[in-house]
Amino acid sequence: MPDKKNGQIVIAARPNGRAKTSDFQLIESPMPAAGQGQVLFRNILISMDPYQRNLMGNASSELTPLALGQPMAGPTVAVVEHSDNPAFAVGEHVVTWSGWQEHGVSDGAGLQKIDPDAAPLSTALGVLGHTGLTAWVGMRKFVAPKPGGTVVVTAAAGSVGSVAAQLAKLDGQRVVGIAGGPDKVRYLKEELGLDAAVDYKAPDFAEQLAKALPSGLDTLFDNVGGYMFEALMPHFNHHAQIVVCGTMAQYDAPGAAPGPNRLPELLKLFLYRFIRIHGFALPDHYDSFPDFVAEVAPLVAQGKIKYSEEFVDGFENIPAAFLRLFDGRNRGKLIARIG
Amino acid sequence: MPDKKNGQIVIAARPNGRAKTSDFQLIESPMPAAGQGQVLFRNILISMDPYQRNLMGNASSELTPLALGQPMAGPTVAVVEHSDNPAFAVGEHVVTWSGWQEHGVSDGAGLQKIDPDAAPLSTALGVLGHTGLTAWVGMRKFVAPKPGGTVVVTAAAGSVGSVAAQLAKLDGQRVVGIAGGPDKVRYLKEELGLDAAVDYKAPDFAEQLAKALPSGLDTLFDNVGGYMFEALMPHFNHHAQIVVCGTMAQYDAPGAAPGPNRLPELLKLFLYRFIRIHGFALPDHYDSFPDFVAEVAPLVAQGKIKYSEEFVDGFENIPAAFLRLFDGRNRGKLIARIG
Repeated sequence: MPDKKNGQIVIAARPNGRAKTSDFQLIESPMPAAGQGQVLFRNILISMDPYQRNLMGNASSELTPLALGQPMAGPTVAVVEHSDNPAFAVGEHVVTWSGWQEHGVSDGAGLQKIDPDAAPLSTALGVLGHTGLTAWVGMRKFVAPKPGGTVVVTAAAGSVGSVAAQLAKLDGQRVVGIAGGPDKVRYLKEELGLDAAVDYKAPDFAEQLAKALPSGLDTLFDNVGGYMFEALMPHFNHHAQIVVCGTMAQYDAPGAAPGPNRLPELLKLFLYRFIRIHGFALPDHYDSFPDFVAEVAPLVAQGKIKYSEEFVDGFENIPAAFLRLFDGRNRGKLIARIG
Repeated sequence: MPDKKNGQIVIAARPNGRAKTSDFQLIESPMPAAGQGQVLFRNILISMDPYQRNLMGNASSELTPLALGQPMAGPTVAVVEHSDNPAFAVGEHVVTWSGWQEHGVSDGAGLQKIDPDAAPLSTALGVLGHTGLTAWVGMRKFVAPKPGGTVVVTAAAGSVGSVAAQLAKLDGQRVVGIAGGPDKVRYLKEELGLDAAVDYKAPDFAEQLAKALPSGLDTLFDNVGGYMFEALMPHFNHHAQIVVCGTMAQYDAPGAAPGPNRLPELLKLFLYRFIRIHGFALPDHYDSFPDFVAEVAPLVAQGKIKYSEEFVDGFENIPAAFLRLFDGRNRGKLIARIG
């Protein structure tokens, strides 16, 4: 295969604010070769996630951006095509972190084998992969269930939020999901069985929120930050526990946010409502992956945790699909099928 | 004693912003009488604390304000003058929550006996009382010691901050105190033995802070909030742990704070530096009082935890002395000696 090429979608420019398709470039690189002890794999499913925006360079992020000309990083599901590593056989399926490219090589470090008969392969990128793990770590390690209490999950129809919301529901809590548009609101109530769902795009968002939270909120799993977090602050109950898992509303903000300054008000809530807020780094919790799978995989198999996936076909369609994450036009885990 | 009166300092007006002496009134009320099972006591030491500002009514507080005409609430040390309660003998010393008045009655609930031979009576209002307990709960229950890490304590020369800073020092941490003016800075370094002290009133406060925190901060015990918290934010290390114990800088702020809005920046730090912040309610931890005394009383007796007290003589001088808490003119625990 001397002339075979490896398609890669690379970062062509640093976005100023909202990213656009011209910030990416589809290039053909030389096909990588598996050296001694290495594996050559072909990606078949590629994950698109909001945090990838920050890998493009972003004033609102502290992640080290990828170099221009590098392929976007992130998880994929791949098939082993050639192996010089006895731990991996040709034809086996693996999760990789090779990102937006058609092929990759690895010495095996960071590859995780998956069984295509145990669960659909795509779940390894979502409900049983890093997004499900994120939800599980946040709900299981950073907040304590308060049976009978009210839990709010923002971006609740998303791949992280939907798992967080359903875990809270299974704990016997009252769960209010926030999402954009009537379709997602219906999904949260009718398919996920949440107790209430609020449409943040509705003109009466604040009123809907107040109506859904007659007794305030005891737990918040926040993926959005910005205006959404500020809208929720007045509803924090005494001893409320909050996990900051994402700040999607802020990812595009290039500089200082206009006033009023809401920080003093938040500090006041620590003092007078005894709240606590945690952030966490997912890599600190990778060793919890077996515990996560042990709890969540059976719940998924039994239909007690539902998940939604949206597939995009064609490697070249990844950038346009990725950008839809930022105007709320996707639902559930967004995955590209290639090859 | 039919004509004997009980002096009381009552809240005469709700301050708009900074409190002033005319917001208080010294009145003479009828002397209370001890009924069946009750104790009549005479206050000899009266505590003045920043949180009392919020009991006067304050847009920046969520404490229920005291009614106009009521004496300021708070802890005192008193002598039992008359007792119809077998648990208390005339002449015994007790801590009460009777506030700014000369006498009070109680059925015994909330009175705590103290031994005048075990430690100076005044310590029951400070280092071995509620301010010491506040520092101990924050440092022992809400943050974990990180030996070798850097701890910042704001209002470090104050009655809470000085105990928090010394506990951190005893844990083998590098401790940076923030206080106002060269006298307090010298006190923190020379008497309390902190590793560095920064003068927030100095024109080069930000530079002093950066110099004192070459490796950022791992733990923050904050009594100040507002501009002080904002100045510290850029120094938060990954996994920084923060206790919000007070927001003195905000107590006088009547309304919305002017921009820029620093809240999105704080949310970003949860996400990218994995920080956590706690508030707490002291009454939730009153049952830890024996554990606190068991650790701190010997340290005080051995001189390993030092404390500073400032006495004001004369009941009528309480309001003016209290107001000095808000422009940083006091050092250590502020106590009125009366009778």
